[in-house]
Amino acid sequence: MGKCIELARNVKGFTLTNPLVGAAVIKGGNAVYGIHEKYGSFHAEINAIKNAGEDVSGCELFVTLEPCSTYGKTPPCVEKIISSGIKKVYIGVLDVNPKHRGRGVNILRNAGIEVEYGVLVKECSLLIEDFIKYQTLKLPYVTLKTASSIDGKIACKTGHSKWITGDDARELVHKMRGLSDVVLTGIGTVEADNPLMTDRRKNAVRQPVRAVLDSSLKIDINANIVNSAEYAPVIIYTSENADSSKIMQLNDKNVKVIKVPCVNGMLDIKEVLYSLYELGYMNVFVEAGSRVNGSFFDNRLVDRLEAFIAPKVIGGKDAVSSIGGLGINNMNEALIFKDYEINICGQDILISARINDYAMQAVEFTKNYNVE
Amino acid sequence: MGKCIELARNVKGFTLTNPLVGAAVIKGGNAVYGIHEKYGSFHAEINAIKNAGEDVSGCELFVTLEPCSTYGKTPPCVEKIISSGIKKVYIGVLDVNPKHRGRGVNILRNAGIEVEYGVLVKECSLLIEDFIKYQTLKLPYVTLKTASSIDGKIACKTGHSKWITGDDARELVHKMRGLSDVVLTGIGTVEADNPLMTDRRKNAVRQPVRAVLDSSLKIDINANIVNSAEYAPVIIYTSENADSSKIMQLNDKNVKVIKVPCVNGMLDIKEVLYSLYELGYMNVFVEAGSRVNGSFFDNRLVDRLEAFIAPKVIGGKDAVSSIGGLGINNMNEALIFKDYEINICGQDILISARINDYAMQAVEFTKNYNVE
Repeated sequence: MGKCIELARNVKGFTLTNPLVGAAVIKGGNAVYGIHEKYGSFHAEINAIKNAGEDVSGCELFVTLEPCSTYGKTPPCVEKIISSGIKKVYIGVLDVNPKHRGRGVNILRNAGIEVEYGVLVKECSLLIEDFIKYQTLKLPYVTLKTASSIDGKIACKTGHSKWITGDDARELVHKMRGLSDVVLTGIGTVEADNPLMTDRRKNAVRQPVRAVLDSSLKIDINANIVNSAEYAPVIIYTSENADSSKIMQLNDKNVKVIKVPCVNGMLDIKEVLYSLYELGYMNVFVEAGSRVNGSFFDNRLVDRLEAFIAPKVIGGKDAVSSIGGLGINNMNEALIFKDYEINICGQDILISARINDYAMQAVEFTKNYNVE
Repeated sequence: MGKCIELARNVKGFTLTNPLVGAAVIKGGNAVYGIHEKYGSFHAEINAIKNAGEDVSGCELFVTLEPCSTYGKTPPCVEKIISSGIKKVYIGVLDVNPKHRGRGVNILRNAGIEVEYGVLVKECSLLIEDFIKYQTLKLPYVTLKTASSIDGKIACKTGHSKWITGDDARELVHKMRGLSDVVLTGIGTVEADNPLMTDRRKNAVRQPVRAVLDSSLKIDINANIVNSAEYAPVIIYTSENADSSKIMQLNDKNVKVIKVPCVNGMLDIKEVLYSLYELGYMNVFVEAGSRVNGSFFDNRLVDRLEAFIAPKVIGGKDAVSSIGGLGINNMNEALIFKDYEINICGQDILISARINDYAMQAVEFTKNYNVE
């Protein structure tokens, strides 16, 4: 099951609104693996059966997520499992999607197949934390990245910021972009850095949608991000009274413009996230300035923080903080991480923190599920 | 030699202006250790010889620092080594103190003792980095501590800051105080928190001198730090036009008041450090607020940073930054660490960074030294 999880993780970014799933058929004492490679393609368990040469009668099957029991882009996996003659199915986590929630287990058992669930349930659940949020809260999973000095600054008081972190950290950020459905930034960052926000690693195979928060629609029509809209999609979120002719100009350059309501003179970020959910994006990677970062934290909309910390001091009371916004009034209100990992990334330190826990609900559901 | 270093490190805080030194006599195939336990007591090599029962004729001696060749609080160690019949001496690092600088090596060799130096030279040099700075620059070694959220904040915008880090981090800070000659803070911290700045661990055996930067001498005559001056010394640094009657009041309560010049309306920190050097303090531990921390960094006077990072977000553009002051204008001016270590301290992360390198000069001197 561990190997199934590891293989599934390799295709992050390719399954869109589908979860990451890995499977294995045990045939002749050997494991034959399968993963769900990309949106619309065969599911992991079907690929494992195919890779085992279809002849899997009497074999055991491991799958990280409960097999589906409904028609989607592909026929229900449970039917294929039943018809293939599989004898026993080991499932990691049950699917909290309201259409499933144990239905797959029941169908398999009713067909006389032995089913065990909850195998490495926490790990299998963490693998699809974004999918769990997307299914249950109808919002994309938000990862926010900062790159600061040890004193939490992302720019000098003059605004100068190139570079805080080193090459390895910047390369890893490009990879993170490539693994995300959407990279989101603010107009401040676009104006300051004129960035592309793409994955420019040599082996990049997939570009994220770029989203820009721009309440006054003041983006330069010749900004790099606008000019690259044919190469990778761009969405600009603006306020309801944005200039129509500017919207048409942007549309002509293949940029989608979406109006959302404002709260206290700023775009309502929750509405932006809901719009991205509606458009079918499961993962959002926020790479923005102090103000937008602050706004995400003020609204408690960050699920994961990737904090790169450079081994240096910028200093200065007027330097730019990694997370601005309103902040809190009392330490009791501080947002405390659920857990975190520390890694060294070239010359820099990366602290990866889980802020919201969506995995636990799937773990609990799986542990407490009793077949009717 | 490694064990000598480890043992010597255990008495940090007790040798005052003397360096940490460890030694071992190899007698009958076993190592008999000795350290320089505290200021005024026997040196490490003498203790090793004593611990070996004085009868060390023909034995080998390891010592982390070049044996002294001058009369101080104790007679020169080289004389004792020669008279003891030691056959060979292995030295870690040579003493860059102008009174020594290879003189001990020469005396031992002239007495027919075989001498080898440069054994674990880097480690032996790092052990006495504070001593090297104190001897060569005539300034104490400055360690500055911060305790911030991951976004580099030490208080909410309201000033509320209790607590950012957990019990284990706070316990370790008390230990760091106990290992320092002086704990230095600003009047802002005294007014905000009314702290004692002492080591209040159950097993604390030594209290640091407390120093307060207070240019207007506005400290409350009944502040905890003032009222505890009989228990552990307190020095207040103030400007040249401080109120004489307030100075007398403080003196009556056993508080020493020292006037130093101002630069741009703030006390000249370099003068404060020079005064602490003159008073015979080798280590200063700065535990202060954003402004004083910023001032130390603006003046490039920090040698080591102990940055505790709590796994939480405070946020807010008006929250208090760990390192304020003027800061830099361009990333090229950022202060980059020579090296750093990461440790987990209870719930928190501790990044310990060496900013200035004083060890290298002693390493180079030792490597390049040729006996005349």
